[in-house]
Amino acid sequence: MFPTWQDVAANLVAVAAGRAPADTVMKGGIWVNVHTRECLENHDIAIKDGRFAYCGPDASHCIGPDTEIVEAKGRYMVPGLCDGHMHIESGMLTVTEFARAVMPHGTTSMFVDPHEVANVLGLYGVRLMHDEALEQPINVYVQMPSCAPSAPGLENTGAELGPDEVAEAMAWPGIIGLGEMMNFPGVINGSQAMLAEIAATQAAGKTVGGHYASPDLGPAFHAYVAGGPADDHEGTCEADAIARVRQGMRMMMRLGSAWYDVESQVTAVTEKGLDPRSFILCTDDSHSGTLVRDGHMNRVVRHAIDCGLDPLIAIQMATINTATHFGLEREIGSITPGRRADMILTSDLKSLPIEMVLGRGEIVAESGTLKAPLPDFEWPLDSKQTVNMARDLTAADFDIRHEGDRARVRVIGVVENQAPTKALEAEVTATDGVLNMDRARDVCQIALVERHRATGGVTNAFVSGFGYDTDCAMASTVAHDSHHMIVVGTDKADMAMAANHLRALGGGICVVKGGEVIASVALPIAGLMADRPAHEVAADADRMMEAMVACGCKLNNAYMQHSLLALVVIPELRISDIGLVDVTTFKKTELILG
Amino acid sequence: MFPTWQDVAANLVAVAAGRAPADTVMKGGIWVNVHTRECLENHDIAIKDGRFAYCGPDASHCIGPDTEIVEAKGRYMVPGLCDGHMHIESGMLTVTEFARAVMPHGTTSMFVDPHEVANVLGLYGVRLMHDEALEQPINVYVQMPSCAPSAPGLENTGAELGPDEVAEAMAWPGIIGLGEMMNFPGVINGSQAMLAEIAATQAAGKTVGGHYASPDLGPAFHAYVAGGPADDHEGTCEADAIARVRQGMRMMMRLGSAWYDVESQVTAVTEKGLDPRSFILCTDDSHSGTLVRDGHMNRVVRHAIDCGLDPLIAIQMATINTATHFGLEREIGSITPGRRADMILTSDLKSLPIEMVLGRGEIVAESGTLKAPLPDFEWPLDSKQTVNMARDLTAADFDIRHEGDRARVRVIGVVENQAPTKALEAEVTATDGVLNMDRARDVCQIALVERHRATGGVTNAFVSGFGYDTDCAMASTVAHDSHHMIVVGTDKADMAMAANHLRALGGGICVVKGGEVIASVALPIAGLMADRPAHEVAADADRMMEAMVACGCKLNNAYMQHSLLALVVIPELRISDIGLVDVTTFKKTELILG
Repeated sequence: MFPTWQDVAANLVAVAAGRAPADTVMKGGIWVNVHTRECLENHDIAIKDGRFAYCGPDASHCIGPDTEIVEAKGRYMVPGLCDGHMHIESGMLTVTEFARAVMPHGTTSMFVDPHEVANVLGLYGVRLMHDEALEQPINVYVQMPSCAPSAPGLENTGAELGPDEVAEAMAWPGIIGLGEMMNFPGVINGSQAMLAEIAATQAAGKTVGGHYASPDLGPAFHAYVAGGPADDHEGTCEADAIARVRQGMRMMMRLGSAWYDVESQVTAVTEKGLDPRSFILCTDDSHSGTLVRDGHMNRVVRHAIDCGLDPLIAIQMATINTATHFGLEREIGSITPGRRADMILTSDLKSLPIEMVLGRGEIVAESGTLKAPLPDFEWPLDSKQTVNMARDLTAADFDIRHEGDRARVRVIGVVENQAPTKALEAEVTATDGVLNMDRARDVCQIALVERHRATGGVTNAFVSGFGYDTDCAMASTVAHDSHHMIVVGTDKADMAMAANHLRALGGGICVVKGGEVIASVALPIAGLMADRPAHEVAADADRMMEAMVACGCKLNNAYMQHSLLALVVIPELRISDIGLVDVTTFKKTELILG
Repeated sequence: MFPTWQDVAANLVAVAAGRAPADTVMKGGIWVNVHTRECLENHDIAIKDGRFAYCGPDASHCIGPDTEIVEAKGRYMVPGLCDGHMHIESGMLTVTEFARAVMPHGTTSMFVDPHEVANVLGLYGVRLMHDEALEQPINVYVQMPSCAPSAPGLENTGAELGPDEVAEAMAWPGIIGLGEMMNFPGVINGSQAMLAEIAATQAAGKTVGGHYASPDLGPAFHAYVAGGPADDHEGTCEADAIARVRQGMRMMMRLGSAWYDVESQVTAVTEKGLDPRSFILCTDDSHSGTLVRDGHMNRVVRHAIDCGLDPLIAIQMATINTATHFGLEREIGSITPGRRADMILTSDLKSLPIEMVLGRGEIVAESGTLKAPLPDFEWPLDSKQTVNMARDLTAADFDIRHEGDRARVRVIGVVENQAPTKALEAEVTATDGVLNMDRARDVCQIALVERHRATGGVTNAFVSGFGYDTDCAMASTVAHDSHHMIVVGTDKADMAMAANHLRALGGGICVVKGGEVIASVALPIAGLMADRPAHEVAADADRMMEAMVACGCKLNNAYMQHSLLALVVIPELRISDIGLVDVTTFKKTELILG
């Protein structure tokens, strides 16, 4: 564990007093002070034992013969950026590889909810993420997942977590709070289990993450707040943001790879003039490609500034506001004595080029290049053996049997750029007692292949919207939130080949076209993450998306849509291991209407 | 203990959702929202189990047949006021009597440092204050005193506290942090004991109170900050305030009975435009008369507004800012769901008349009248037997023996309206080997009478500045910080009578004139506090101060000056049980120069 302030206080005092030399002194920078919201020119910073010892006009008295001097040369000294809520798994990377990708972007603290791993590996997986997080040279705080499964009764996950596991995890050193409480209907209805998870978190003095994904700001919303969630990142408009902060919640405004919720909410501050202290910036979900090409929290801060926010306020929203929310304002989030020496050097506050990054006093990145050694965290073998299918599949496993020439069936309708699906219907023909797909009308098949307990279960259904126009199949063990395997295809032999390929691979994503695997992303850890660098995973993912296009798919974010088709908490129609689910009534429904 | 949010969350959710009735609904008020810094007209509030359950535009759905309805009638609904740092003992009242005095003024939370009681009764006394605090209908959080004695080696106190006691107290339910770390030279010099006290507090996740009483903002100041104190109330000018908040400390701006530090520092916000979130209002020390005549935190907020602060920002500085600082923002400091239902109804934000006060959902005061029952806390007998003198004194005990006709002596020079004294010198005559006072030149005697261990010790010296012009004496067991007994007089028989009167009384203050006790304030608890209402104590204190005037004393705050003459941490010359102390060199010094 990184030494606490109290562990090294005597040394910090000695450096500030001039009795002992600092490890590092940064000279002549513009101190971006997030407590006062000021830029203070020509200031020095002295660092000892990974923490700030002195921040003031002149650190000459802190310099000894072995003190490393860094010339800031009039550049801004900004606290390291914090991501207030995010899922590492969205990058399809391990914690270490995620850290490697984001450190050059100036991220020095992340609040991560390993919800996906929890659904596959349960508390064991959360602990592995937690342990890997503790080994990083930047601060990775873990939020204990609250909702695995996210839809009890509508799916069977690889593992389940409840109040006992939450209470257990609250004692772990790296747990900072409860991960987003997605079961908002549960809280509103007074679910004992959900309230017990919140109670265990509050009793530990930690922060309860919220997730209120509803536009209803009436009594249901108020009841959710009364249950204890202390923040929310599901707001999408100014009214959502205002409603939340008025209730004493922190509004986490998201800019993820597919979330664009800053511009629409930041007007609560820029136009309505609300006190900005309750606003926090976060990413929630960043794909590897975004990390490689666009950045991480630096992208979010830059975007917030582009939306009209004062740069200092935007920086507060990614530093001290986040730290305060999690009870860490004396540990991270500002360049002041005693705090971890996490900081960025940048020559422009608005465009925010990340020229140097310090993590706990060490230069961890410079000019976009990683400088810090990263831990060699080995995920155990059993975490890489999670595609538990009883046997290889054949084309016949995807047969949907029906007596008669034709049938009226339900079809999951994918809607471009929207998370909810449409509950469509279609007429399909049957041959030899088996229903046919209808490629001309873009009706192909989807299968949910059970992969946690080797039950051999395959749930078959129809899906529309991808536009596949050739013999092909796409399979993925990233299948929110239960992370079984989703296979979508126009050809059953290709579907079987795709599923079997992932079985052999130990998890991941692949595209099969005309009997050939044309793209593949290996995600051996829990079937969700790769222990390879982000740029490799991003390149694989790019090829995978090109392969989808080669199969005729013209949908925006097509892979994301694929991976969400089993998310049985978002309307209208989804698939799970128990069958087709009507997510307007939260009940299993029949595929064949007649 | 008052039930936690998690204890009652299910009930709060049910009320907010409309499934269960609230205990109380306040209708049609202007919601002063300290999170957003807004006034929201025509809002309702529903309370259940002493906490806010619903805060929004319409609480009709929370009303049942037994719900008590309070019509706010367009008045402002303001969170109950918090005093961020204070000493109950300064009011010469018990916790209960202090609470009785301040509740009608809208105070619902206090952060109290029982430093004076600690010097007399040690951890036992702190625990008694703590236990009494827990029984109040408002929130009294206790800061564990850090510096008893405040000047080790220069005085012997009734009890001593160190790192072990601090660590022990951190586990008590009502301890919120460490009381002001006054030993700033100790911290700066790396004192192991002081850093260990801070470490025990930080390890418990609690807040370290600061006290940096020096104008030096150079390396010494920075070293103090690096040691861990998280706030300070000793700033007196704008530069002090700015320096502290830049270092990540909270600046506590004081308006006490004798402290006027708001006006001189608030310009850091009103003129320099610093982010106000790091500023907190407090009283530090309020005399009973101030509480009775002028108010408490309502007086401070009103004054801050008069100094040009936006009323909403001033209210934030006495509510949410304080709560956040102590890690209590989900418990107190705002009118939002889950928090303790502490609030004020007022018809004007600027003049702040306190028309109704709710504490934990109950109406505790209305139109200046207390409505809440108060606890019947019984201080044990031994806490009322703290004037431990070996025997009654006689005039001869005050004799200062000297061979020769005259002597040059040191004289403690009281300076009007200043805490520091002057180290004066005077020529005095001697009669029969005993030095004489010199009433014509205002040189009278002072004695420090040991009263903790019945040693019989009497330290005699000279003092100037009170202006006593008749045979008289004044004695007090309030004698910061060791709280022995200070006797000042022009006549030794009167001095003996005053001391013996306090011995009989069990502690307090008295004035003797010409052989008669003409005023007396009984303070039986630790010789510091009375278990009588504030108005009675204030009346006694008024008579005591009139009595001082009757003896010729024309000094402003004369009693306070008297009580500080043994405070061996403030220059230049003081008295203690070990002798006369030079507080520029922190050494014992000789009374007679030759």
